[in-house]
Amino acid sequence: MSKIVEEVEASNLNYADNFGSKKDLESKPTRRFAILTCMDARLDPAKFAGLVEGDAHVIRNAGGRASEDAVRSLLISYKLLDTKEWFVVHHTGCGMETVTDEEIDEIFEIKNSSNINWLTFKDNKQSLVEDVLTLRNHPLVPKSIPIYGYIYNCSSGILEEVEEATLAGQSK
Amino acid sequence: MSKIVEEVEASNLNYADNFGSKKDLESKPTRRFAILTCMDARLDPAKFAGLVEGDAHVIRNAGGRASEDAVRSLLISYKLLDTKEWFVVHHTGCGMETVTDEEIDEIFEIKNSSNINWLTFKDNKQSLVEDVLTLRNHPLVPKSIPIYGYIYNCSSGILEEVEEATLAGQSK
Repeated sequence: MSKIVEEVEASNLNYADNFGSKKDLESKPTRRFAILTCMDARLDPAKFAGLVEGDAHVIRNAGGRASEDAVRSLLISYKLLDTKEWFVVHHTGCGMETVTDEEIDEIFEIKNSSNINWLTFKDNKQSLVEDVLTLRNHPLVPKSIPIYGYIYNCSSGILEEVEEATLAGQSK
Repeated sequence: MSKIVEEVEASNLNYADNFGSKKDLESKPTRRFAILTCMDARLDPAKFAGLVEGDAHVIRNAGGRASEDAVRSLLISYKLLDTKEWFVVHHTGCGMETVTDEEIDEIFEIKNSSNINWLTFKDNKQSLVEDVLTLRNHPLVPKSIPIYGYIYNCSSGILEEVEEATLAGQSK
């Protein structure tokens, strides 16, 4: 057993020892919202947004992008499990901003262009706007769901809101 | 501003007030591993696996499935950011086990079959095995990365390991 597996299992047993009333939680998020954010190790959405178990859905991928899979998850989140507001959270210092899709193909020694859309981006705020608009304009996403955009500042821990005018494409 | 936004922003300011040395964390996960799990609100991977900020990548979607986007994220996790072990964690009482793709299409009133593969499953352990094998057999995933399978028990908080013989398809 690897050291990491030992550590994770030991931490898990500690957690389970004090599980208490969490055993009675239902699958619908108590606070009826969802957060889409990056997999980055520095981000702890429960901590930076004040969640306890049962509160909200958390969807994470490289970049916090509104990929097809993130859309799938968010559609299930609202339609089957009743979330009513969504947060899209990118962050400063994201690795996806420092490389291009072509460079990742090269790192993997993929000779021709790969089939993988790596979803890198050049401008963090612009990619956030794109992701919010992808969700807002999706035919299965109702207009009644507010979709907010934030950039998490890895140097301060602060969620910096991207103003609605920017999200709506009225300014950049 | 919605009540939820007010609450999230207030919680976030509290968090940022005690940010301390987290401002100096680097993007490579300190403990060099990644967890792929479900978006379910009851799951807090940092708590159930004993993570602090900076430790590990966390990828989450509906079901904790090894979707194309999860594969994209994990490939970036190992190749660009040096993770060396991966955990795939499904959980008891997952909503994805209670519906079929066809039923979700019906809920959305999609007349013909939709283009969306909802990635529902009938058997939790079997879907976990499928996801682990999808990752292990992916041409860009090196054999040197151990990929573990666990089912998180929502009634106890315990991570129940799925034994290697099952993951390897030697028994069910």
